Amino acid sequence: MLHSEVKKQLVEIVGPDRFQDDPESLVSHSYDGYVAEGRPEAVLFPVSTAEVSRIMQIANGRGIPVTARGAGTGLSGGAIPAAGGLVLCFAKMNRILAVNTRDRYAIVQPGVINAQLQKVLKKEGFFYPPDPASFGISTIGGNVAENAGGPRCLKYGVTVDYVLGLEVVLASGKIIRFGSRNVKDVTGYRLSSLFCGAEGTLGIVTEITVRVAALPESYRTVLAVYDDIELTANTVADIIGAGIVPAAMELMDHIVVNLVEDANHLGLPRSAEGVLLIEVDGVREAVEKEMGRIVEKAWANGAIDVKEARTETEREALWTARRSAHGVLARLAPNCMTEDATVPVSNVPKMIKGVQEIAEKYKLRIGILAHAGDGNMHPIISTDMRDTEEWIRVEAASQEIFELAARLDGTLSGEHGVGLAKSKFLPLFMDSDTREFMATIKKAVDPNNILNPGKFV
Amino acid sequence: MLHSEVKKQLVEIVGPDRFQDDPESLVSHSYDGYVAEGRPEAVLFPVSTAEVSRIMQIANGRGIPVTARGAGTGLSGGAIPAAGGLVLCFAKMNRILAVNTRDRYAIVQPGVINAQLQKVLKKEGFFYPPDPASFGISTIGGNVAENAGGPRCLKYGVTVDYVLGLEVVLASGKIIRFGSRNVKDVTGYRLSSLFCGAEGTLGIVTEITVRVAALPESYRTVLAVYDDIELTANTVADIIGAGIVPAAMELMDHIVVNLVEDANHLGLPRSAEGVLLIEVDGVREAVEKEMGRIVEKAWANGAIDVKEARTETEREALWTARRSAHGVLARLAPNCMTEDATVPVSNVPKMIKGVQEIAEKYKLRIGILAHAGDGNMHPIISTDMRDTEEWIRVEAASQEIFELAARLDGTLSGEHGVGLAKSKFLPLFMDSDTREFMATIKKAVDPNNILNPGKFV
Repeated sequence: MLHSEVKKQLVEIVGPDRFQDDPESLVSHSYDGYVAEGRPEAVLFPVSTAEVSRIMQIANGRGIPVTARGAGTGLSGGAIPAAGGLVLCFAKMNRILAVNTRDRYAIVQPGVINAQLQKVLKKEGFFYPPDPASFGISTIGGNVAENAGGPRCLKYGVTVDYVLGLEVVLASGKIIRFGSRNVKDVTGYRLSSLFCGAEGTLGIVTEITVRVAALPESYRTVLAVYDDIELTANTVADIIGAGIVPAAMELMDHIVVNLVEDANHLGLPRSAEGVLLIEVDGVREAVEKEMGRIVEKAWANGAIDVKEARTETEREALWTARRSAHGVLARLAPNCMTEDATVPVSNVPKMIKGVQEIAEKYKLRIGILAHAGDGNMHPIISTDMRDTEEWIRVEAASQEIFELAARLDGTLSGEHGVGLAKSKFLPLFMDSDTREFMATIKKAVDPNNILNPGKFV
Repeated sequence: MLHSEVKKQLVEIVGPDRFQDDPESLVSHSYDGYVAEGRPEAVLFPVSTAEVSRIMQIANGRGIPVTARGAGTGLSGGAIPAAGGLVLCFAKMNRILAVNTRDRYAIVQPGVINAQLQKVLKKEGFFYPPDPASFGISTIGGNVAENAGGPRCLKYGVTVDYVLGLEVVLASGKIIRFGSRNVKDVTGYRLSSLFCGAEGTLGIVTEITVRVAALPESYRTVLAVYDDIELTANTVADIIGAGIVPAAMELMDHIVVNLVEDANHLGLPRSAEGVLLIEVDGVREAVEKEMGRIVEKAWANGAIDVKEARTETEREALWTARRSAHGVLARLAPNCMTEDATVPVSNVPKMIKGVQEIAEKYKLRIGILAHAGDGNMHPIISTDMRDTEEWIRVEAASQEIFELAARLDGTLSGEHGVGLAKSKFLPLFMDSDTREFMATIKKAVDPNNILNPGKFV
């Protein structure tokens, strides 16, 4: 419980309507898309940088933990207030401050929803490339905190590649601003990249300048179907190895395809052992040529069917299938562990085979979903944490999946972040001197360790 | 002068052949492409990470400054040992350790020359996109230290967008490794971006993993000629504002065109007030379509001629003209100040007009070269520092150029870095709390301030 004096000061800053400490509010801000929970002592909804600064001054003076939160869709526990304290929820600090397509940037507050920005940009023929599956509800602030990816990041890059400038409130309450509206900017340390993916452990982002791009003039989208998962994975490695870069290349295995079809009745091929959803975008003529090469490679690698979306409705159906996959798997059982170990694309076939062997060994249902074109795997384990015996197997399987990724030159997280979920696996991918270096920066910047404590650093 | 005991220890590490402290060596390592100088006490040529680590342990224990150096082509003084001490020259640590085009990465030592990597990649149909004008001699390590750009960064992004992983020796001599071979990687803080552009003030980069891309199947290159510089600049803003992204869009003004023509006799139009060198690359059909739109916009904005390079030789001639421009201007007078203030592209016309007014006001010859498509200006001031009266005017003009860039939402440096050259102008673009934040990180990481001291942080 917050000291009554502290509560009084905080209520003075945000007003009684934007301060919550009733049990329902505390519970509903104690989790995100990961399986763990952490109960805050109060939830505040700031609407300005000045408010955030004043809140931080109080928190820092008293050593109260502060965890920033967007929509709470993160899958690694980054927004879980593991050490209690305050949750700063940015849902009400959600204005688009500027859109300038001539100079290809937009300026937003952290609570702006990704889809909200897309909608405004689309009217002007532009878009913001990072597209996490949660883009309909997740915020740009949360996307920045986790350095979110998404399907089309294969061609376009992830969030960090689009952050031009930030305004950040430090633990001390000081406000700093860096970067600019310019795509090219080497004025001092690249702080925008340092804060991107830092999960709110170094400061609270209060304004974001992002780069935007012109919408491509055309798309072509196909579904390649296989009766063998290895052939599916081989196709991915073959296409990327040939230097072709589709806008997206998504893989779903037999388990995922059937669960999605159960839920959505989209006509996916239930007998398939693997499918690839491949999209190419750009100038019409180039799109046709590239898709021609891709379809050729799909057949050459043993596809049993390659269907093209002939209308925008058909295209949307394929993407709905893909985007719904995580939710469908999450609803299967009380809990859902979504890993996102990533490997070099030539190792995707080995990684998929290995995950299937691990599933068999531990008698678990692990659906495999992947942004396969950049090696970003999403093995999804449906489970029930209350089943202690099964949970032990889930944890052992996760450990083996990460060990496998490490052996295959992979990385712990491609786009979900380390958060609470993967801290214990960090030593598999990063030695102690490097982890200590991160801790040195964290300590210098947040000496009282109040910014989202208990996470990976 | 180094203490004889220190010298003995250093010679033990690198051997007598790779330790130099004769006056000629010290003088030849006391400058880079900027106008200032700083005399080191010794120059060492390490060939391994272990050697760098041992050198740092000695330097850190004794508080001896250490400045890393590639080819010394930097234009902001980043490689100048401003506080004396040791220069670590990476010319001999220059092996390409791995090239893997299937997984689109290469691993190099810092002394590998950009062109050397390009040559190896080209054989496999790939390339490394960052292409500073110095690419024929500058090193990847130097490119990383300055976060180098180049003409085709308009489409492809700058060095930081291609650094996947680094090995770094810290001030303490500890060796850290982070990032991976994976394009998508959010495992901990994005340290690869923090070290990129840090000019060796946070650590010494000893191994670099970079992303590479497939060579485009075709190019088209045109030279658009104008009798009015404003129309030249308007064309740039119009093309980018329409959402078209050429591979490169380079601007040269009347002064630059004539100096380049004097030197190279390439047939450039001497009467032109401005020219644009525009290149498009990609799938042949897309290239043709995009170039069609570009040429249309060039004519619509008042070009008096638009010439296409019809052969690879003609294309090379145009690029030779552009790449030689800086050298030609540098040879004009004893000294050459190359600024690289960058503005949002819609402000390019105002920026060019402003620079011309400043040139007139201070009676200076300022040639304007620009990676115009991303607003990255290169006003080049030829001067003689020994002419004190003129030098005062040069400094005043530089100040005004940066003030103008600040007013136009620009940034201090687009691709050359801040180094020694622009430290004093940093407050125009970054407030004191933000500069103090950079200093906090620097101090935490390098408490004895031995890593390239005297630079922007």
